[in-house]
Amino acid sequence: MRNIRMIVSYDGTKYYGFQTQPIGNTIQDIIEHGLKILTGEEISITASGRTDAGVHARGQVINFITRSPIPIERWALALNSRLPKDIAVLTADEVPLNFHSSHFAKRKTYRYSIDTNKFADVFERHYRYHYPMPLLVSAMEEALSKVVGEHDFTSFASQRSTKPTHVRTILRASLEQSKGKIDILVTGNGFLYNMVRIIVGTLLWVGEGKLDVEDFERILKAKDRSAAGPTAMSHGLTLMEVEYDF
Amino acid sequence: MRNIRMIVSYDGTKYYGFQTQPIGNTIQDIIEHGLKILTGEEISITASGRTDAGVHARGQVINFITRSPIPIERWALALNSRLPKDIAVLTADEVPLNFHSSHFAKRKTYRYSIDTNKFADVFERHYRYHYPMPLLVSAMEEALSKVVGEHDFTSFASQRSTKPTHVRTILRASLEQSKGKIDILVTGNGFLYNMVRIIVGTLLWVGEGKLDVEDFERILKAKDRSAAGPTAMSHGLTLMEVEYDF
Repeated sequence: MRNIRMIVSYDGTKYYGFQTQPIGNTIQDIIEHGLKILTGEEISITASGRTDAGVHARGQVINFITRSPIPIERWALALNSRLPKDIAVLTADEVPLNFHSSHFAKRKTYRYSIDTNKFADVFERHYRYHYPMPLLVSAMEEALSKVVGEHDFTSFASQRSTKPTHVRTILRASLEQSKGKIDILVTGNGFLYNMVRIIVGTLLWVGEGKLDVEDFERILKAKDRSAAGPTAMSHGLTLMEVEYDF
Repeated sequence: MRNIRMIVSYDGTKYYGFQTQPIGNTIQDIIEHGLKILTGEEISITASGRTDAGVHARGQVINFITRSPIPIERWALALNSRLPKDIAVLTADEVPLNFHSSHFAKRKTYRYSIDTNKFADVFERHYRYHYPMPLLVSAMEEALSKVVGEHDFTSFASQRSTKPTHVRTILRASLEQSKGKIDILVTGNGFLYNMVRIIVGTLLWVGEGKLDVEDFERILKAKDRSAAGPTAMSHGLTLMEVEYDF
């Protein structure tokens, strides 16, 4: 038995999210189907976490147990040749049998991308939320800095969250802006359901002047989802990296 | 009567090229259909030049004659709301009635994009030719510099070209490289059919060491299409800009 870990990139545009669903057409279904063709085994993959419909990944991490003797350096190419072009394995390595890509994840980095130009860049229409408004970017940046540290993020979690605690630590949060395009990068030890998208939806209200930085801080402290802004569209979100201690 | 000029961007992935074809599904068909819905007129648009199936544009220029009284500042938004999301008007202005977007074009800039990484970036799979080979980039750069100036580009023109002369002037040609991705930018006073794609296909042979820079120069002087390399895939090509004197 071997435990294989892979870094996977995918364009989530046409999938119903990462996790298997009865209706099919998820990233997990497609990868498991590719693994079945490749190995003949019924393999169940585990990911660092789910991504919703429309959400992308540059550095999702998965792992799975297999009896296949395929040499480790051939896995990525062999599986890619059995996957559609919007899903790609970037690397594969062999890890201890107890490794679990979700339980062992130490840090994750998400990027949320916004296009504030009057007309959306057609080449990024599936990867960048078109929000054609003049935004107070420095206010957004200041509000964003308030999420860094350990907080109870209940205000920024979907009410469907079933986690026993909503306390998470954000290690870094930054905003880059160029030619009307904004990228928000957030690294944390864990994220609640819809957390980045609700933070961004609230930041956009700060950007529009509907809220100020003090309001944003007040919302964070309120531990009340209804105090925060809307959940920003899924297609602006990309899981960039998942970090492990090994 | 008014002559309206527009800068148009499009993702050419799912279209059969720019120019109207009996089978439909061209950029021209879609824009003319949008104009018909908007104005009620049967408008024929003229472009700076055709682009082939799969070729993209960030700065295609079109113009058309209309009787519509729509104020010039409203054209882009009004037409965009009647176009699919992979075609966008960026700007509109009113030009003299004799303006013709092809005849008056002074310079065009094309970009050809290559991904040499082992596994293609899924987010650029429609915009960057995946060519997973180690390439001698400085040799490619040197060969590319040889196209600058006035030359007979018969070696780099499709044999289907019907132009009376194949002499064109390339004003600038440059190559940028970052993280296994290469962008080749070429500006000229005019381009022959498939010219950039054949130049790139030949440069890739230089990159692989199948040809050296002297071979590339010899090919340029040969005025013989069969001396040059293959036509690089259409989806790596983007029309970036068309320049006019006014």
